Amino acid sequence: MAKEITSRTEDYSQWYLDIVKKAGLADNSPVRGCMIIKPNGYALWENMRDALDRMFKDTGHVNVYFPLLIPKSFLSKEAAHVEGFAKECAVVTHYRLKNDPDGHGVIVDPEAKLEEELIIRPTSETIIWDTYRNWINSYRDLPLLYNQWANVMRWEMRTRPFLRTAEFLWQEGHTAHATAEEAIAETRQMLDVYADFAENWMAMPVVKGVKTPNERFAGAEDTYCIEALMQDGKALQAGTSHFLGQNFARAFDVKFLNKDNKEELVWATSWGVSTRLIGGLIMTHSDDDGLVLPPKLAPTQVVIVPIPKPSPEITEAADKISKLLRGMGIRVKVDNDETKRPGFKFAEYEMLGIPVRIGIGARDLAAGKVEVARRDTKEKMSVDTEGVAEYIKNLLDDIQQNLFNRAKAYRESMTTKVDNFDDFQKVLEEKGGFILAHWDGTGETEDKIKELTKATIRCIPLDSVEEDGKCVLTGALSKRRVLFARAY
Amino acid sequence: MAKEITSRTEDYSQWYLDIVKKAGLADNSPVRGCMIIKPNGYALWENMRDALDRMFKDTGHVNVYFPLLIPKSFLSKEAAHVEGFAKECAVVTHYRLKNDPDGHGVIVDPEAKLEEELIIRPTSETIIWDTYRNWINSYRDLPLLYNQWANVMRWEMRTRPFLRTAEFLWQEGHTAHATAEEAIAETRQMLDVYADFAENWMAMPVVKGVKTPNERFAGAEDTYCIEALMQDGKALQAGTSHFLGQNFARAFDVKFLNKDNKEELVWATSWGVSTRLIGGLIMTHSDDDGLVLPPKLAPTQVVIVPIPKPSPEITEAADKISKLLRGMGIRVKVDNDETKRPGFKFAEYEMLGIPVRIGIGARDLAAGKVEVARRDTKEKMSVDTEGVAEYIKNLLDDIQQNLFNRAKAYRESMTTKVDNFDDFQKVLEEKGGFILAHWDGTGETEDKIKELTKATIRCIPLDSVEEDGKCVLTGALSKRRVLFARAY
Repeated sequence: MAKEITSRTEDYSQWYLDIVKKAGLADNSPVRGCMIIKPNGYALWENMRDALDRMFKDTGHVNVYFPLLIPKSFLSKEAAHVEGFAKECAVVTHYRLKNDPDGHGVIVDPEAKLEEELIIRPTSETIIWDTYRNWINSYRDLPLLYNQWANVMRWEMRTRPFLRTAEFLWQEGHTAHATAEEAIAETRQMLDVYADFAENWMAMPVVKGVKTPNERFAGAEDTYCIEALMQDGKALQAGTSHFLGQNFARAFDVKFLNKDNKEELVWATSWGVSTRLIGGLIMTHSDDDGLVLPPKLAPTQVVIVPIPKPSPEITEAADKISKLLRGMGIRVKVDNDETKRPGFKFAEYEMLGIPVRIGIGARDLAAGKVEVARRDTKEKMSVDTEGVAEYIKNLLDDIQQNLFNRAKAYRESMTTKVDNFDDFQKVLEEKGGFILAHWDGTGETEDKIKELTKATIRCIPLDSVEEDGKCVLTGALSKRRVLFARAY
Repeated sequence: MAKEITSRTEDYSQWYLDIVKKAGLADNSPVRGCMIIKPNGYALWENMRDALDRMFKDTGHVNVYFPLLIPKSFLSKEAAHVEGFAKECAVVTHYRLKNDPDGHGVIVDPEAKLEEELIIRPTSETIIWDTYRNWINSYRDLPLLYNQWANVMRWEMRTRPFLRTAEFLWQEGHTAHATAEEAIAETRQMLDVYADFAENWMAMPVVKGVKTPNERFAGAEDTYCIEALMQDGKALQAGTSHFLGQNFARAFDVKFLNKDNKEELVWATSWGVSTRLIGGLIMTHSDDDGLVLPPKLAPTQVVIVPIPKPSPEITEAADKISKLLRGMGIRVKVDNDETKRPGFKFAEYEMLGIPVRIGIGARDLAAGKVEVARRDTKEKMSVDTEGVAEYIKNLLDDIQQNLFNRAKAYRESMTTKVDNFDDFQKVLEEKGGFILAHWDGTGETEDKIKELTKATIRCIPLDSVEEDGKCVLTGALSKRRVLFARAY
C-alpha cells in the first residue's frame, strides 16, 4: 500500500501531498484554504507544542489567551503593520443569522450589523499592546514574558497543507521590556530556543540569521529567523523572532515610569512558530516509502509486530519487551491485529514513520532473537532478546542523531558559494539549495534578483564572517555574504 | 490587599468579579463579551486541560483539529440544530481590507465579499459530520473516537468572565459508532469521565443526570449533564454529553456498510466542557480572602516564605524542603523577594489560593520547626522540619479531600425535598439550592414553573429512585423527583 505515493524525483509537490494524506496527517476541508488536522498530524503537533512549551517555561515565560477577534481600527494604528498585515483578513460584519423568510435555511440578519467590523486575528500584536497599556505602569511591572497558543487566520490565495493555510495553529510570544538591550536579548534568546528545538527535537538543521529590511515583519525593527533547507533544494522559514523596538508601544501609548521616575515607551518583542513546522519536518526527513519521524517527536516510537500473528510465546515476549520499553519512557504500540498480514503492517508503519519496528517470530524467539528494523536507513538487525530494551533505547538516540547528521550533510552539500550572476542563476536552476553570495545591501538589488531568479535573501547569517567582495548583481562593494534561496 | 474584595454576603456577584480580577485570572477585553485569560487563569486551565486530556486518551480518544469557520449552509442542515444554535453567531462576510481612499485607516473591501458567508463555530457537529461522510465507509472504520481542543464563539448578550463569554475555550468530543448501544455507552462513559474530573480533580461534587426534552442540546436525542451547586445556591451546568442518535448522520448523509453488507446511518455522540469550569471552581471553594484552589489543580501547590526575609540558614532550609517536595512531584515556589513583608505576601498567596504556605523563621528553625498554613481552613500548624515534606504531601491530599467534603456537605444541606408549590417558592426565595420535587413530565409545566420562579429542571438525576408522587405544580401523577434550581 505504501507504493501508492508519488516518488520525490517524479513530482516533489505531489509526493508531499501524498505523504500528508497517506500518513493521516491532514485532510482538505470544505472551507477554502483551511485544513483538517487528523489524529496522526495532531499527535505530532502535541509533541512539538509540549516540547516548545517546556522550553518557553524554562526561560521564564507564562501562557495567556487573548481574544480571537480584533477591532478593525486597531490594525491601522501601527503604520508598517497595517501595510504588511491588515489586508488579507477574515472580516466579521454581523452577529446574527435568522430564518430565511423565503423558505428554509438561514440568512444573515441585516439588523445585526456590527458598528465596527472585527477581524479574525492574523497575529495579535495590536490587541495585546492595546491591553498592555492597562497592565504596565512602572518598571516594576516589567518585563512581561507572555506567550499564547492560538489559531490565526490569513486569507492566503495559494495554500498547501501545513506550509501555508488560511487558518493555522501557532504560538505567539509577546514580551514587554524596560530597555532596548533587554528586548534585543529576549529576541535573540527566543531565536536560540527555536534553533535548539529545530535541531535537537526535529533533527532539522537551521541557519540562524537576520532578515533584510525588505523581509522584515511589518512593524519590527529587526526580524531574526531560522531557515531550513528542504529536500528539493528550497528554503523554509521555520520560525521568526522580532525586535519591535517601541513601535507598538508608540502606536498604543504604552508607557512606564522608569527607576528615575521618568516616563518612557515600553520595548517589545514577538516571536512565533506554527504548524508549518510539520511541513518542514516532512520535507526534511521523509522518503518515497512515507513519513520519517525523529524519535523524540514520534507519537509512537516503537511498534511490535508478531510474525505472522500472536501466539502465547510471542505475546509473552511482546508484553515483556513493551513493558521494559515503557518503563524507560518509550512510546510503544503492540499490533496484535490478526486481520492484517505482517507485510501489510510493515508497509503501513513505514508510511507512518514509526522510528523502530520489532518483529517477533516463533523461530527467532526460540533462538533468543527478535528482528529490529529502523525506519531511517531501513536496516534490519537480528537482536538478542536479552538486553533488547537497552538496545532500542540507544537505537532511538542513534536514529535521532543520524537524521540530523544526514539532513546537515545534505544541506552542506547544497550550500554553494557563488561570485557572479551567471553562476548564481546556474546554481539555482541546476542544483538549487542555499547560495552564499555578496550583495550590495540595497532593497533595489534584492528586488531585482528576486524578479530575475525568484530567489530571495533568506537571511544574513549570524555566523557570517566579514570578507571583501562584490555584489553578485551590481558589482558594488560588499562586506559579507548573505544567504539566498528560492523558498516556500 | 486581600481586603479589597467585596464579601460574599454583601454582593456575591461582585465578589466573583473581584476574585477574577484580584487573583489575576482574567481581564476584560476591548471586544464585546470576550475576555482575556491572564497567566493565573491560563495556568489553571492548562492543568484542567491536561488532566482531562489524559482521561480522554485513557478511554481511547485521540485529538484532531477542524476549521474555525463553518459554511453558513451547514448550520441549517440539521433542523433542531439550526433552531438552537445557528442564530447568535459571528458571521464572516468579507476577506480583505483596503486603505481608506478618504484618508488614513482601513475599510472593508466591498469587492472581497464571500459568495457564501462563513460562521465562526459555535460548536462543530456540522463541519465534523460533513467530514465524517468522507472518512466512514464500512463498520471497519468505526468507531471514530475524536476530540478537539478549540475556541468557539456564541454571541451572548449578557456575559460574565468564564461563566458566559462570547468566545470561550473548550473541548468537544465527536464520536461515530456502528450501533445505538455503543453510542449510548460512549455518552454515559464520558459523563462519568466528567463527573470523575469534577469530583476528584476540582473537588466539586456533581449530580449526574439527564436533561428534559426542553433542555436538550439542539440536535440531540438525549443530553446527559453534570450539575454543581454554587455557594450562592445557584446551579451550574458543568459539562454535557449528548447522544445524537442518527440525526447528524442523516443531515450529512453519513452511512456505513455493516457486517451484513447493508447500508446504515452512523450513530453519534458529542460532549464538551469549557473554561466555564473555572467559574465553577471559583464559586465552589473560594472565600472572602480570595481564591481557594484544590491542590491537584493549583499551578503552585506550596509556597515557602522566609520570615521576615532570607538568611543563610533560612535559605538552606527552604532549598532543602523545596527540593524534597519537588522530588515528590509537588509544585513549589520559594519567595525570596525582599521588597515585600511577610504579611503582605501571606495576604497575596491567600488571594491566589495557594493550598499550603510554609513560613520559615530563624527562631522556629533553631527549634527544628516551621510554620505550615493551609488555605482551606486557614489553620496554622507548627511542624517539625524533620519529615515536613511527607507531612505536606499528606496535607495536600487532606486539603483536596476536605474541599470536596465541605462542598458536598454544603450541597446536601442545600438540597431540599418539597411536595407543594408554596414550599417550592418559599425554599427558592429563602434558601435557594437544589430542590427535589415531583414533576408531571410535560414541557408546559416546566415552562410555567420557570416563568413563575426562574427555576429550571437541571436534570433527572441518574440515581433517582422510583416513588409515587404528585407534580408540584399541577398535581398530576409522577413517578420520580427531578432536580430544580435557579442556574447560571
